[in-house]
Amino acid sequence: SVNPDLGSERQTASFSVERLTALLDGGAEQTRIRRAVVEAIQSDPVFSRENQYFQTQNERYEAAVRKAVHLQKKMHEMGWTENGPEYKYIYRALSGDVAFLLHRVFMRSISVLGSDRQIAKWIPLATQHKLIGSYAQTELGHGTYLQGLETTAVFDTATQEFILNTPKISAMKWWPGDMGRSATHTVVFAQLYIHGKCYGIHPFIVQIRSLQDHSLCPGVTAGDIGPKMNFEHIDNGYLLLKNVRVPRENMLSKFCEVRPDGTYVRQGSQQINYFTMTSVRISLISDEVLIPLKKACTIAIRYSVVRRQSKLKPGEQEAKILDYQTQQEKLLPQLAAAYAFHFTNDYLQELFDKGYREIQRKNFDMLPELHALSSGFKAMITQHCTAGVEICLRACGGHGYSLLSGLPSLYTKILASCIYEGENTILLLQTARFLIKCFMAASAGQPVPPSVTYLAAVKHGKCPAKNKLDFLSPDIYTEAYQHVAVRLTSSTAAKLQDLIQSGDKKHDAWNQCTVQLVQAAKAHCHYIAVKNFAETVEKLETKAGIQKIMKHLCDLFALHGIFSNTGAFLHDGYTSAAQMDMVTAAYLDLLAAIRKDAVPLVDAFDFTDQSLNSALGSYDGQVYQRLYEWAQKSPTNQMSPAYERYLKPLLHNTLSKL
Amino acid sequence: SVNPDLGSERQTASFSVERLTALLDGGAEQTRIRRAVVEAIQSDPVFSRENQYFQTQNERYEAAVRKAVHLQKKMHEMGWTENGPEYKYIYRALSGDVAFLLHRVFMRSISVLGSDRQIAKWIPLATQHKLIGSYAQTELGHGTYLQGLETTAVFDTATQEFILNTPKISAMKWWPGDMGRSATHTVVFAQLYIHGKCYGIHPFIVQIRSLQDHSLCPGVTAGDIGPKMNFEHIDNGYLLLKNVRVPRENMLSKFCEVRPDGTYVRQGSQQINYFTMTSVRISLISDEVLIPLKKACTIAIRYSVVRRQSKLKPGEQEAKILDYQTQQEKLLPQLAAAYAFHFTNDYLQELFDKGYREIQRKNFDMLPELHALSSGFKAMITQHCTAGVEICLRACGGHGYSLLSGLPSLYTKILASCIYEGENTILLLQTARFLIKCFMAASAGQPVPPSVTYLAAVKHGKCPAKNKLDFLSPDIYTEAYQHVAVRLTSSTAAKLQDLIQSGDKKHDAWNQCTVQLVQAAKAHCHYIAVKNFAETVEKLETKAGIQKIMKHLCDLFALHGIFSNTGAFLHDGYTSAAQMDMVTAAYLDLLAAIRKDAVPLVDAFDFTDQSLNSALGSYDGQVYQRLYEWAQKSPTNQMSPAYERYLKPLLHNTLSKL
Repeated sequence: SVNPDLGSERQTASFSVERLTALLDGGAEQTRIRRAVVEAIQSDPVFSRENQYFQTQNERYEAAVRKAVHLQKKMHEMGWTENGPEYKYIYRALSGDVAFLLHRVFMRSISVLGSDRQIAKWIPLATQHKLIGSYAQTELGHGTYLQGLETTAVFDTATQEFILNTPKISAMKWWPGDMGRSATHTVVFAQLYIHGKCYGIHPFIVQIRSLQDHSLCPGVTAGDIGPKMNFEHIDNGYLLLKNVRVPRENMLSKFCEVRPDGTYVRQGSQQINYFTMTSVRISLISDEVLIPLKKACTIAIRYSVVRRQSKLKPGEQEAKILDYQTQQEKLLPQLAAAYAFHFTNDYLQELFDKGYREIQRKNFDMLPELHALSSGFKAMITQHCTAGVEICLRACGGHGYSLLSGLPSLYTKILASCIYEGENTILLLQTARFLIKCFMAASAGQPVPPSVTYLAAVKHGKCPAKNKLDFLSPDIYTEAYQHVAVRLTSSTAAKLQDLIQSGDKKHDAWNQCTVQLVQAAKAHCHYIAVKNFAETVEKLETKAGIQKIMKHLCDLFALHGIFSNTGAFLHDGYTSAAQMDMVTAAYLDLLAAIRKDAVPLVDAFDFTDQSLNSALGSYDGQVYQRLYEWAQKSPTNQMSPAYERYLKPLLHNTLSKL
Repeated sequence: SVNPDLGSERQTASFSVERLTALLDGGAEQTRIRRAVVEAIQSDPVFSRENQYFQTQNERYEAAVRKAVHLQKKMHEMGWTENGPEYKYIYRALSGDVAFLLHRVFMRSISVLGSDRQIAKWIPLATQHKLIGSYAQTELGHGTYLQGLETTAVFDTATQEFILNTPKISAMKWWPGDMGRSATHTVVFAQLYIHGKCYGIHPFIVQIRSLQDHSLCPGVTAGDIGPKMNFEHIDNGYLLLKNVRVPRENMLSKFCEVRPDGTYVRQGSQQINYFTMTSVRISLISDEVLIPLKKACTIAIRYSVVRRQSKLKPGEQEAKILDYQTQQEKLLPQLAAAYAFHFTNDYLQELFDKGYREIQRKNFDMLPELHALSSGFKAMITQHCTAGVEICLRACGGHGYSLLSGLPSLYTKILASCIYEGENTILLLQTARFLIKCFMAASAGQPVPPSVTYLAAVKHGKCPAKNKLDFLSPDIYTEAYQHVAVRLTSSTAAKLQDLIQSGDKKHDAWNQCTVQLVQAAKAHCHYIAVKNFAETVEKLETKAGIQKIMKHLCDLFALHGIFSNTGAFLHDGYTSAAQMDMVTAAYLDLLAAIRKDAVPLVDAFDFTDQSLNSALGSYDGQVYQRLYEWAQKSPTNQMSPAYERYLKPLLHNTLSKL
């Protein structure tokens, strides 16, 4: 039975939840396929996540391997293929709780970096799990700066082999997933040496464990790097190589080849490599970043209409905590951000697909813009969503802090997204470099990519809003965001030039501007996110109340961004103090307006109880009952040796002293 | 041997590290005592924290109980007493990793709320561990709002007993530490009923487990609430009471008594109760909030001079990451905040001691101010320090995400401080209520407490700074903070009055202002923290470079607060855009200036390697070696059944298919 405090919230939805779900999925047919996959996965007990919060790292790893192996069988049974429409929903249905993700990266890197012959040899082996692959790039001492990797691969013309070594401890491979315990093979990135000359980083396929008994191969030291903040199910590993030899054919050689005599031949364009990174950064946004925020919003908002605390009005029943303005101000902007970034993701996907088509036609013109946008948005969205999940957790008070709420795991996992696939600050500086370059080009009247043409039009106007309702006009707020992005980019470009003109070296000047460059990159991404949300709303069907509620969320997303960062908008007087007070008033009004639809808006994300795995967030809102039931199953309610060993002697000793 | 990249940082300290340590400790003699305690504790293998990151929740609990029991012996051996000078250092030396903390709260609540007879009976029993106590206030459905607690205690005149019940699931006691598995007794807060009339919440001593065999007492259901984000070592518990009878004498009766005939007598002042909460909020700041931030700064800053990544200048060696402006901008403001709040804590302690002396003289005048300041600062400092620890964690990239860095545990633990002992938003609203009240009083010419007299002096001036160096003047920035606090308080007071005058009910008007009230409360606390830091620096000895470096940190703390929240200062034109650019320039200059002393500044916190328990933060900076050594000990490097069960069949099956 549904908790009436939650049930009543669903009676008054201003829009059709089912239609909104279909919109998010990209059509009702997609919703149908997704639900079928979820149903098939979640009804299979092998994929159960029950008791997950009670398991040790070893148990989590074992379960993830079991699920990965079972998934092969399941896919075969269900007739799902890697190219089928169901495939993209499997990972979501499993809540990512599965091993062998790096096996897929292993395959992708061979597909992208390998020659046709290498692809023909290795991909079938990997597809049929005749081996388990991993991807060994990061080292103890090197992450971001690939050129600094220290592992070496020396070509031995006599034996036609590469000899791989880990010359010092900081060169040890560290972090690769699936490598700590599972993988039999990996792609090792190493500095290539031929006849004593270094040719830079290249990828090599290396077998690390026996296919017969899984023992480590000669010269290989490998293991698990131990506990992390999350990802207990993944065996992130270390790898130390000592004179490990691989045949010449094991260097992935689509772009570079070493001939038998040691001649080094570079062929084709490596630009596609950047495209791979772009692809990974965009693809992680949906599953690894948006879903956790959507789940956190679902949990926190459902809980906030079930939890009653203190009285809003004297003499009345205690109030639902979502009726407090401060609670709305915590949660509803996160909900708006989840929707905003959902549409940003659609925008990036579309741009990426377009870029991919161009690249297939050998046109690489879009690459710099795609790289800048994917880097900046990866950083901006992971940052916002991580902060959002933390806000949701804290908004649930003590119960949010219990693992059983599901929120701590969402937080500790999403946090990693700020670090992996490019540390966020580094990525924002990549975007900033692009912005500065384009700003200079635009100032010089040269053409620039579509997303940055606005930089050419430096306007010195003022925000025209006259009352708080004007701030519900997308033109008004989009213009304000644009103004800030231009101002931050142009002022930082000016500082950079000033420093260089006053004698600073280029790299010194750059370093002295990086704090402000990061601000400019964020402002650019924020502007595009707001603009894209507004344009998306514009195009929505007006039926079923969808457009109206999405417009509210778009307004909230935009005004929250202004309210939380007023200085950027006030700085040069574009927005006046009186206008900022209007923003505040409009923003607070929106909270009250959206609050009524808060539960339907999270229902539309359509998470099953099993995928939320939260004692606070289930569809029926039976929070306290579930917390109690789950707690009773905790291993901490088994007999502890602490009583016999320590408590009994303490208590009895003192009793006998009476 | 010390990593030379770390060692070189210590050569150039601009001040005496040892003198700064003594300053932080409150004198060289205190440093000596602290170090002796740390030495005694950390040289005892029973207190070892080795392998802590590999332990299960059950193992952590067992270790914490073992340590708590052993601590009794240790204190006896060392001649340490609860009133001795060593006592306050024990918890820090143990890094809080010990059980029976709630036993102490049990004792304190009896001391404060119990009659002389009750104190005489229970305190000796507790002191000698003839029982293990806990404190059962929070319920599944109730935290903040004590009046809403649902547990009942009905007085039975016939038997002269109270009958305690948990009438529904939301009334179940939930969270009390030491109660899940250890406690034999607890103080239960329940609604008192006599002859059918409710007299509100009262405390009752209830035995929950047998002193002989530790089995649950009749009518008692209790257990552990399961896994949390941290605090694995604590058995937070649940408690369900069914017709549990306790004698009339078990109601703590310093302030209220139930006579044998059921007559209810209230005696004395309950104001002291607020004082207890104030005392707890202030006392947690040092151990639970400042120490984690100081540790996180130590780990992240030491790591940032050992980690080299990318090149700052072409052709040179890779740069220490602390040489990047963005890394400085992440870490150095956290370091400045750690010092700022250290001195805020001194200020609060002093105020508290003064208040305590007054109260002993039956003068309760200081209570409202103390309550407001302790609430506001508890919220502000826990919030800032939690965010600071997270920034430190993320600033260490992937290695920060490993549990072995120590940073995840610091984060997941300090996060709880934002929730316990008063949820932060609620606390800030308490401070805001005080501010509004005082602002109204001050506006009406009435006297107000010292910390808020500034509210009376609403000035409409402008910031007088003329160049960036002016912003290194404490008068300039303190005045700016004051201006913002006055503006936010007065404008919110005006909004509140407007709403009420336009017909809104008082409570409705209040709720509509809470987002802004929270801002006002934060601005007030921030102003006092800045002012106090500046005044502290003023009084420091100028010798040994201490004052100079503290002045830098004070400036950084102040300017970082402005730089991160420019809108508040720009809003009404108090600070101009040109001045804000000066703030930015002065702020970025400070980062470069303080960077040179960053390592000595964290060395001054004087943490031992054992208490940091971090592979990244040790004194010798041998980061990679230690990560590798520790990882090898992880249980994830033991044989897993996953190979035989899943991997071998998968690999062999496919191999045989060849």
